[in-house]
Amino acid sequence: MSENKLLVFGHKNPDTDTICSALVYADLKKQLGENIEAVRLGEVGAETQYALDHFGVDAPRLIEKAADEVEEVVLVDHNEFQQSVDDIKEVQIKEVIDHHRIANFETDGPLYYRAEPVGCTATILNKMYKENGVTPSKEIAGLMVSAIISDSLLFKSPTCTEEDVQAAKELAEKAALDLDKYGLEMLKAGADMSSKTIEQLLTMDAKEFTMGSHKVKIAQVNVVDADDVLGRKEEVLKAMEEEVQSNGYVLFGLAVTDILSNDSVFLTAGEKEEAVHSAFNVKVENHEAVLEGVVSRKKQIVPPLTSALS
Amino acid sequence: MSENKLLVFGHKNPDTDTICSALVYADLKKQLGENIEAVRLGEVGAETQYALDHFGVDAPRLIEKAADEVEEVVLVDHNEFQQSVDDIKEVQIKEVIDHHRIANFETDGPLYYRAEPVGCTATILNKMYKENGVTPSKEIAGLMVSAIISDSLLFKSPTCTEEDVQAAKELAEKAALDLDKYGLEMLKAGADMSSKTIEQLLTMDAKEFTMGSHKVKIAQVNVVDADDVLGRKEEVLKAMEEEVQSNGYVLFGLAVTDILSNDSVFLTAGEKEEAVHSAFNVKVENHEAVLEGVVSRKKQIVPPLTSALS
Repeated sequence: MSENKLLVFGHKNPDTDTICSALVYADLKKQLGENIEAVRLGEVGAETQYALDHFGVDAPRLIEKAADEVEEVVLVDHNEFQQSVDDIKEVQIKEVIDHHRIANFETDGPLYYRAEPVGCTATILNKMYKENGVTPSKEIAGLMVSAIISDSLLFKSPTCTEEDVQAAKELAEKAALDLDKYGLEMLKAGADMSSKTIEQLLTMDAKEFTMGSHKVKIAQVNVVDADDVLGRKEEVLKAMEEEVQSNGYVLFGLAVTDILSNDSVFLTAGEKEEAVHSAFNVKVENHEAVLEGVVSRKKQIVPPLTSALS
Repeated sequence: MSENKLLVFGHKNPDTDTICSALVYADLKKQLGENIEAVRLGEVGAETQYALDHFGVDAPRLIEKAADEVEEVVLVDHNEFQQSVDDIKEVQIKEVIDHHRIANFETDGPLYYRAEPVGCTATILNKMYKENGVTPSKEIAGLMVSAIISDSLLFKSPTCTEEDVQAAKELAEKAALDLDKYGLEMLKAGADMSSKTIEQLLTMDAKEFTMGSHKVKIAQVNVVDADDVLGRKEEVLKAMEEEVQSNGYVLFGLAVTDILSNDSVFLTAGEKEEAVHSAFNVKVENHEAVLEGVVSRKKQIVPPLTSALS
């Protein structure tokens, strides 16, 4: 049991799993007697805000640095230092709860590290409540189920496991939710792109990758109405082309993922656009390709593009 | 449930925890239906052989490479790639069960990673039997308790936690052992240094560290009779001095740890010998210092020396 205060947070560009898992794990650890506060490293998105509002929970406090407040931190939903708080190397990492690969991560001493290959951090946290004999409140159960819905796109993503589905069902009951109805409303709340600026579309969920010897950027937005983005296609492509020039990407792709049909439209810029053709065996016309049944960047976009470019 | 065969192994220069934890985790996973074999990356020491003989268990098979046999591996009791099988980067790491810091470790995809800040990997494995509702056999319980005795120096090491003590007591009962009697016999079996060559003394448990900008090597041997080593002091120092010259160490220390008194004699070579004086506030005379109550390299030797040299 730590006497010193701990901060717990997820990754930069926080999504619903990152925000909810920080709040949830802080709740569990408080019930186990720890002095801990959930914080966040960036703005709360509309989808996450919908979940917080639904369960009447305040967003965690925004921080830019950790070392001026605490000596030890707990990471949820990430481990790679470039995704974490800027001064991560100046604090001790006491615990990590995560469901991603491990990379660019190092500690000086032993720690508690728990990663499982499931679709969502909250699925692991749900187990930890049980292991510790603590029953989550209706609100906490609601945050956990929201995180699972978000990361799994309501169980449609290939990253979703049977454990995630079972956890979500069990938690929806505790939170007195109609899983499909609530899930779709929550996803829709985060999928209104009509009010977003071009810059927001291209940064809200963008990641950089090294594929072969090439620098590639892949951004993704979830939509209900793809015209929110495709209606501004020329402007979007112009901004992508500018990023390609200034950052040296051989390819910049924006996946516009329809959360109802579970297909994506992939907009492309950069000299290696033809890699999209060979990766997915689809036509690329006027910087646009249709990727049927593709919703997961991690499992369905990055691996074939990496092969095509390596 | 994996259909493909898995290999599970601990670190190079295997100690009792590494060998026993590989055997134990293979047993648990076999009972859970997996196709898995425990293997080892180096010679079995006398202490470990004593434990294996006592419980009538064969040592795991020695391997030099993994990728020609399997696609996926499970690591126990280590994670740093330089301590693992030579071709670790050519296989997928499916799981890690460990109690060390995380460093020089990276995966391409999500995995099951379980690290806890306890004194021994077997303490974590004992929990996993319970979590999976599997009762370990008398032999498997015996291997687990042997690992805990070894890593904790029969509970004398500052790395030993209350969880390790409780696990050992519980497992000793299952294995029908007198913990103190068996523990001392096992430690003694590994502490006879009279038959070891100088080279063996300096390599059987030696680790290299970077302290400040300096390269440092610290080796450790457990003894019942320190004269096994100190009776050959001039030869030992000469060999240490040769390593200092050929490898550029500023300091090479050999901790000769008496497992009965729990004190260490520290033999030193290299230009920064005076760091031993400032780190431990002891006299260094004729390349020798007495470190009272010091048994743990990780917790009691490396941190003060790192401070003194940084």
